[in-house]
Formats: sequence, C-alpha cells, structure tokens
Amino acid sequence: MRELGLQVRSDAVGNLFGRLEGDDPTAVMTGSHIDTVPNGGPLDGALGILGALSAVETLKTQLGRPRRTLEVLVCCEEEGAAYPANYWGARAITGTLDPAEAASVKDADGRPIGDAMRAVGLDPAAIPSARRQDVATFVELHIEQGRLLEDAGLEVGVVGAITGQYRAQVVVEGRPDHAGTTPMDLRSDAYLGAAEMALRVAEIAGQLGRPAVATVGRVRLEPGAVNVVPGRATFSLDARHPDLALFEELLTSLDVALHEIAARRDLAVAVTRHLYEEPTPMSAQVQDLLGETADALGLRWMPMTSGAGHDSEIMARAYPTAMIFVPSQGGRSHRPDEWTPIEQIVPGVRLLAHTLRRLAYDA
Amino acid sequence: MRELGLQVRSDAVGNLFGRLEGDDPTAVMTGSHIDTVPNGGPLDGALGILGALSAVETLKTQLGRPRRTLEVLVCCEEEGAAYPANYWGARAITGTLDPAEAASVKDADGRPIGDAMRAVGLDPAAIPSARRQDVATFVELHIEQGRLLEDAGLEVGVVGAITGQYRAQVVVEGRPDHAGTTPMDLRSDAYLGAAEMALRVAEIAGQLGRPAVATVGRVRLEPGAVNVVPGRATFSLDARHPDLALFEELLTSLDVALHEIAARRDLAVAVTRHLYEEPTPMSAQVQDLLGETADALGLRWMPMTSGAGHDSEIMARAYPTAMIFVPSQGGRSHRPDEWTPIEQIVPGVRLLAHTLRRLAYDA
Repeated sequence: MRELGLQVRSDAVGNLFGRLEGDDPTAVMTGSHIDTVPNGGPLDGALGILGALSAVETLKTQLGRPRRTLEVLVCCEEEGAAYPANYWGARAITGTLDPAEAASVKDADGRPIGDAMRAVGLDPAAIPSARRQDVATFVELHIEQGRLLEDAGLEVGVVGAITGQYRAQVVVEGRPDHAGTTPMDLRSDAYLGAAEMALRVAEIAGQLGRPAVATVGRVRLEPGAVNVVPGRATFSLDARHPDLALFEELLTSLDVALHEIAARRDLAVAVTRHLYEEPTPMSAQVQDLLGETADALGLRWMPMTSGAGHDSEIMARAYPTAMIFVPSQGGRSHRPDEWTPIEQIVPGVRLLAHTLRRLAYDA
Repeated sequence: MRELGLQVRSDAVGNLFGRLEGDDPTAVMTGSHIDTVPNGGPLDGALGILGALSAVETLKTQLGRPRRTLEVLVCCEEEGAAYPANYWGARAITGTLDPAEAASVKDADGRPIGDAMRAVGLDPAAIPSARRQDVATFVELHIEQGRLLEDAGLEVGVVGAITGQYRAQVVVEGRPDHAGTTPMDLRSDAYLGAAEMALRVAEIAGQLGRPAVATVGRVRLEPGAVNVVPGRATFSLDARHPDLALFEELLTSLDVALHEIAARRDLAVAVTRHLYEEPTPMSAQVQDLLGETADALGLRWMPMTSGAGHDSEIMARAYPTAMIFVPSQGGRSHRPDEWTPIEQIVPGVRLLAHTLRRLAYDA
C-alpha cells in the first residue's frame, strides 16, 4: 500500500487501511479479510484485498486524485479460527464490538483474545476508537466458495443478500442396552432417531428448494461402543436461507420434524440454539450500480445470494454495501486446493474498479 | 476354595481350579470368568464362580466324595478389556490358544500380553500345558444380561445356543463441501448414506424377528465440522443370530442393503469384517439334563439363546457344555447397576447344584 502511495494506518483491533484522499472525506471503502481458516486455501479473503489494491492502483494511475476518498481495507479476524470472534474487525469498524468481549472471548486454552491483542501492542480499551462513521459505501470482492457460477458458466455474481444462519446442538436420549441381548423391539436406540432426523433435515431443505440448505456435520454417540445400543446421540444442525420468511419457515419445519420423530420413537430430544443470524440484504442501490456496471462492461453475470457469512454482512448493517463473487474452481473452499485461475479473477477486479470509479470519481 | 477343602491350583495362563476328587478322575467342571469390563457390574462372570462354590460346598457337605471329580473353574480374561484377548483362559484350557499370540496380542499402548503374563510370574511358553482333555462336562451359571427372563417372569433360562457374531467397520465416502454454499441437490453427503444404512440395518434385523439383532454403536464423520458436508462416515456394525442359516441370511441382507444404498446415493462403501464367529450350539444332552432337573425342582424356566459371547462358547467346542441363565434386573449389564437380587439367584444355583449332583454323584 505504501508503494502505491496510499496513506497507511491501522486501528485499535489491527485492521489495516490504505487511503487515497479525495475532495470529499467520506470514504468509498473496498477490501476483505486477511485471516483464513486452518488448512484453508489462498483466496478466501486475500483475493478481495489484492483485487482492491489492483483496482485502486489502476484508478490512481489513470485518473489521479478521486472526488471521494478511496480506502482499501485489510480486515482482521473474520473467520474466528483461533477465537470464537467472527467478524471481530468488521464489528470494531461498525461500532458493534463491546470492549468487554476482549476478556470474555477465549481460545480453546481459555486465553482471552485481549491477551493476544496486548501481545501485539493493541489496547482492548481502545476498541471504540476503531468505529468508522464516515464510510459512504463498502464493496467486497470475494470468491464464491460454491459452484453455482462455474456450473452456470458465468463470470461474476452480484450478491443480493447474505444468508440467514442458524446453528444448534441436538441431543437425542434413548436407553443404552447390550447389543447382543436386547431384542430389536425392546430397544430405545438414540442413534436411529438421530439418523432419521438427519435424513429428514436434508429432505426438508431439499423440498424448500434452492438456496435453502440444512446440514448435519457432526454426530457423537454414547457410550459409543461397538456392542452397546446408543443411549445418547448428539449432533450439530446448520440451516441457512437468505429470505427471512423462508428462513423462518425452514427453521419451523426442522423443529417440528425433530420433535415428531423423537415423539414417534419415544425418545427425548433437546435443541440448543448456538447461532441465529437473520438474513442480511445488501444495498439495493449498490447492487444496481454493480449490475449496470457489469452490463456496461459486457460481463456475463447473475444476481445471487451468499450461503456463507462475510464481513459485508456486518458492514451492510452500518453502510450501503454489496459484494462481487468470482467463481471457485469445483466449488472448493476452506481447503488447500481452493482456486480460481487469474482469467476468472480479472472480470471481478474489472467490475470492482469500474464500480469504484463511478462511486469515487464520477459521483 | 481352600476353606471348602478343595485342591487349589492355577494353570499356565492364570486360570484357577478348585478340585474335589472323585473315584473317576474325569472332571465335571463348573464356573465362569473372574474378569469384567471397565465400569462394569458385580455379577457378570463372578456370579458363576460364587454359585459354583456354593453348589459344590453343599454337595460336599451333604454327599461327601463324588463318584466323578468335581472342579470349580475361575477363568481368566474372558472380556478382553485390556487386551483384544477374549476367551484367553477358555482357549488355553481347550488347547486352541497359540503361544505365539502372547507376543502378537497387544494392548492399546502396544505392550504384548506376554509381558503382562511374565510380570505376574506366568510363562507364555507353557501355554500348551494348560490344555485339559479330561473334562466330561462343563456347566456355566451366568446372568442373562438381557431382559427376556424378567419380562417373561421366569426363574431360569437353559441356553440352547450362543449366538453367531459378526462385526465390521463400514466406511462411506462422499464429497466434503461447504455447508453454506453447496445446494442440497449438488451434495454427495456421506452421512446421509450412513444414516439411511443405520435405519435399514435395524429394519432388517427387526423383520427377521427375534433373536436377530443388528446394531450401529459408533459413527464418526469427517471432517466433522458444523459447517461442512460430511465427506466420509465410518461406522461399526454388529450383527448376531444363533441359527447358522438365519445368521448367514442376516449378513447377506445387510451387505446387499449397504451396497444398494451406497449405489443409489452415488457414494462409495467399503465393509471390513473384524469378527465372524459362527453360532455355537450347546450340548443337547446337557441341555436335556438341565431341563429335566429344572422340571424336577418345579422351576419356571425356558429354553433360550445367548445373545452375548461366553466362555461356554469355547468350551462347547471341546466338551459337552451348557449354560444356566438367571434374570438381570431391567436387562442391565456391563454397567455398575447390573444386579440380580439373591432370591432370583438362588433358583439358578439350585439348578446348578442338582445338575452337578446328577452328573457327579448319580451317574
């Protein structure tokens, strides 16, 4: 960023900013997160930073000083890989991060994130100073992390909403019994209930249709012995939909199904919600601008929803925000072979650059 | 055993014998195993030893020296709790334990069972000396470990066969995908295959009817993350039937079902067999004697099969053998609250004592 002649500074939580000052101090901001998941790939997050730098470099070189200030954001701690602190950086920027969380949010060893902040010279008490109230627009370039663009043979996606997310832990209780001496008709097998629930969860999301998704990704049986009928099954439930009404319909259907199956099988079931995030619509105005710009550039694009969470979800609650997706090869993400070839990245960076031009130079 | 005036000795693997010499040196043997499972109860195994001592004490006191030698067996290492060495003691007695297994059978830390033997003064090379070819009959008293006797309101069970046992590990392979960005219709979810298999396994055993049982007691998903579609599911399969033809029918039906489900869902499946033990019929002659004796005593009894393995399974392959079951409260076993009240134990010990009388004094 220094090489590009941007003014570089970092804030109280470690977000990094490269600023190209314009006549109007309110900022058109673009960027993404610098952190990634364990055993992740090279593009989730980082692409949106490098793409932003490339776009801003081109604009500065070709058009000089903007009317409205341009800012590249290198956002910290989106993934919550070491701490359960997703969107930490974006929450600080939007003023929704309580400094008390520096003590309460801890890693697996019980070490508060505040200690990690202090270890790199950051002061948790200064968190409120990271709040930005001068952001006119935020635009984030990101890989899709799915296969819809690739399957459709399109160049970019304009994100209309970030999906609502629900996560719960479901505990099914039956009775542990000797697997050799207990006839099938006398069993109360918690796993059979959990297995039927997993099938029904997938069926419900499938019947609701795209983009509804619901997933059981973990399951644990107790006592978990080869020769004992499972007395308890604990599983994770992840459900998502970008439309609030359909999201609620999905969650209600899942809840009804879990309790119906448990009751029919004479099992107990307890559902503990761990996460509930409503769907976040992106700014209609910024979406329209992205779509018009894509058309003007002759790009093959489609509107779509994001099935994963992004910093833009947080930013959209404070500033007009939208996202650009480029294809992910094979839909692969959060794994080392996550990839998008450069010729499939360029259309996304072009759309970003031309949109920033309209926002910061033409406006 | 010394207090009762029995001659006490132990063999090369640590089995203990209390002998009441008769005119005929071939032995009528009774007893069970002294070891138990981790977190187990007080009766699995030990009841058959204490019951045998009680029966032999009574016979010796009331009838003196028997015609045929009576022997109480305290058998070692039936459960295979620390080493995968089930029936170690019984296999040594029947001459089916290869001394080379002392080096090849290892605990979870890789320590061979031979080292544990030497640590208590036993010589693995002497294993063949434990073989007994002078056993006329073996009778074992044991708790049922199930709830059939209790449900039927009966006092004892006479075991006609020990069930055939099959254990396998099943690995289902699909494709791991992002749970947020991968539509339901594009997934290859290994867990949905495994869940359908578990339900079908229970259905097949249920349709075949008692005493067929089939159980999935363990399952592990990979990567096992809340927000990732499972790419691999690994589960245990335990299937049992005491009739060889029906056992084979059960195993064939299970195998066909696993492959049908995998093929229909476009998943790969691999089944690795870990255990295959054919059903073991008990001696018809000893069963008849037990039944006649139970009738003569006015006991409420029924013939039944054992759904769990026992030392008698090994003994029956070398000597005329049968088993007596007494009820287990609530069918509970392999847990600390495993229990049978004394008034429900006495009928089993009476049946054992009178049967030993017929075998060792009347014969």
